[in-house]
Amino acid sequence: MGSVHEVIVDLGERSYPIRIGSGVLAEVGTWLARQPGAPQVLIVTNEAVNSRWGEALRSSIKAAGLAVETVAIADGEEHKNLATLSMLYDRAIAMRLERSATVLALGGGIVGDVAGFFAATYMRGTGFVQVPTTLLAQVDSSVGGKTAVNHQAGKNLIGAFYQPQAVFIDTDTLSTLPKREVAAGYAEVVKTAMLGDAELFQLLERDQEKLLALDPAVVATVVARCCAVKARVVGADERERGLRALLNLGHTFGHAVEALTEYRRYKHGEAVAIGLVAACRLAETVLGLNRAVTERVTLLLTAAGLPVSFPCFARSAWSGALQLDKKVAHGNVLFVLVRAIGDCVLSRQIPLENAIDVIMELQEKSS
Amino acid sequence: MGSVHEVIVDLGERSYPIRIGSGVLAEVGTWLARQPGAPQVLIVTNEAVNSRWGEALRSSIKAAGLAVETVAIADGEEHKNLATLSMLYDRAIAMRLERSATVLALGGGIVGDVAGFFAATYMRGTGFVQVPTTLLAQVDSSVGGKTAVNHQAGKNLIGAFYQPQAVFIDTDTLSTLPKREVAAGYAEVVKTAMLGDAELFQLLERDQEKLLALDPAVVATVVARCCAVKARVVGADERERGLRALLNLGHTFGHAVEALTEYRRYKHGEAVAIGLVAACRLAETVLGLNRAVTERVTLLLTAAGLPVSFPCFARSAWSGALQLDKKVAHGNVLFVLVRAIGDCVLSRQIPLENAIDVIMELQEKSS
Repeated sequence: MGSVHEVIVDLGERSYPIRIGSGVLAEVGTWLARQPGAPQVLIVTNEAVNSRWGEALRSSIKAAGLAVETVAIADGEEHKNLATLSMLYDRAIAMRLERSATVLALGGGIVGDVAGFFAATYMRGTGFVQVPTTLLAQVDSSVGGKTAVNHQAGKNLIGAFYQPQAVFIDTDTLSTLPKREVAAGYAEVVKTAMLGDAELFQLLERDQEKLLALDPAVVATVVARCCAVKARVVGADERERGLRALLNLGHTFGHAVEALTEYRRYKHGEAVAIGLVAACRLAETVLGLNRAVTERVTLLLTAAGLPVSFPCFARSAWSGALQLDKKVAHGNVLFVLVRAIGDCVLSRQIPLENAIDVIMELQEKSS
Repeated sequence: MGSVHEVIVDLGERSYPIRIGSGVLAEVGTWLARQPGAPQVLIVTNEAVNSRWGEALRSSIKAAGLAVETVAIADGEEHKNLATLSMLYDRAIAMRLERSATVLALGGGIVGDVAGFFAATYMRGTGFVQVPTTLLAQVDSSVGGKTAVNHQAGKNLIGAFYQPQAVFIDTDTLSTLPKREVAAGYAEVVKTAMLGDAELFQLLERDQEKLLALDPAVVATVVARCCAVKARVVGADERERGLRALLNLGHTFGHAVEALTEYRRYKHGEAVAIGLVAACRLAETVLGLNRAVTERVTLLLTAAGLPVSFPCFARSAWSGALQLDKKVAHGNVLFVLVRAIGDCVLSRQIPLENAIDVIMELQEKSS
């Protein structure tokens, strides 16, 4: 095992460690055995991840003397819903899972969100550990305690804040990740650098190729830096009363893209990539952001093969989709604006028309 | 308006007030208007309560300048489920309820549990206020943040800890409560006295008739004392890591009674009454509790018309039902035992057979 990075999410008595490095999957069993609670672990995963990494994880857990069972959920946003959750409750009750057991999410963002919401609500809360296996989950969704399922009217409309007790990020698991998934996760890396780590942004400009080729040392450093930014923001504002909304840079636009294309055409990270460029363009018009910043961001994203243009829909469609965001308050949509690389601000003062103007300008030329 | 009792649940920055007295319903609007968040209130209630108290509550809210909508859910444990919850999500999304809005539970324990879980999970948590209208909800379920829906395999298996921002207990609302509901709530009053307030127990022995006749001053005093006990226990152990389980005195038996009779024959409080007598009998056999205590408890309960005998089922059925309890850990069932009036202890060391012996002894002589 190479060197392991550790980042702490500081939330008082609910603080937890994030372990990042090659081979940390093998640490999970001994860590679990040191915790209080029932010696009973339920792994929630999907078939593809389970067939590649499930056995290694189970070996570690069994070697530590704990009982472990596995439930695979169907992959895809369309299964991240109350029906899948209901199936998990049924299975857990059938296997007599106790409230002091640990639910372990092995997979990407969908698995983590569903397993986390299940852990938050089964018997009013079980133990919970994240083992993210996609770049997107490793740099973003596994840290910070947001859990949710989708409603037909919108993503993540049903959920809870529920922090894990630990996050184990084994960078080896990225080796089997399809290229498109790596790029999608990379969009969240760029986002994180833009909102809180200018040095990371420069590192990406220099080492992007190594990162996308999954060079182990570069991956571990980048993931650890992203986790550190996220830990800082979540530690300051766990329940998104203010600051935490910065993490949604690019997401107000991105969620609208996903909603209008019914979560089929774009991966979440791809929609975020489009949203990041839009957030820069909007900041150009309302804050006078230097166009060079937008160009540097666009360059990083396109070099990774990510989209930077919006699909074609009418203004009225965009208006409706933007207003479905969870962060709408008093009818005003919340935007995150880029002041400079590493420095973003929140605003509810942006007229929706300005945002839609940016979308229209950035729409694809041909369908 | 007569004198108002106030009890504070001390949970640091999530502390909240419980206002208890005749007419406090009219305070709700002005209290809500002083809070941050969207000026948008969703009342969750049932038809019967809505027709009697809904308009008074809406008047108070509208007079304070807030927008209010009402959704009535079907009454009965069989509707306290994911389907009802799903309907609430649909309605809330259709009316564009924002995450900073306030969900207000107007009704008994079922309404409070469902509305609370909805508030905990809609957009990862909205504002939440309890306005309990049954004695059971006023002395027990509205305070402490337990929210849940049922699973076909057992009660409250799906839920969350989610504290209200305030509880308004208008003792006037009890005037329209059926006698059987008053008695069911009274079982939780007796429980509360048994586990933490010996003086309250003596007060009940003296003033039981006045309480059951809903004498306003006696009701307000008793409800306030019950809330004070609950606030103390919840303040010390919000998430039931230990001490809070004391509140389940009589409930391990009571839940088994409800499960085996499919939640139809007994009201929750009635099942708890049976469980309280069983908890005393069990304490007689394992702790040497004086039989006089059991007799005093039995007398209070029977005088209110509450049942104190178990329905007839086989030992194996009781064994299965007792082990479905959420508080089972490492396969051991958690019992709350009475050492004396006002002094109870938790134990996982009781052989299940001893508990079933008590049930068999206390079974009804005729069916």
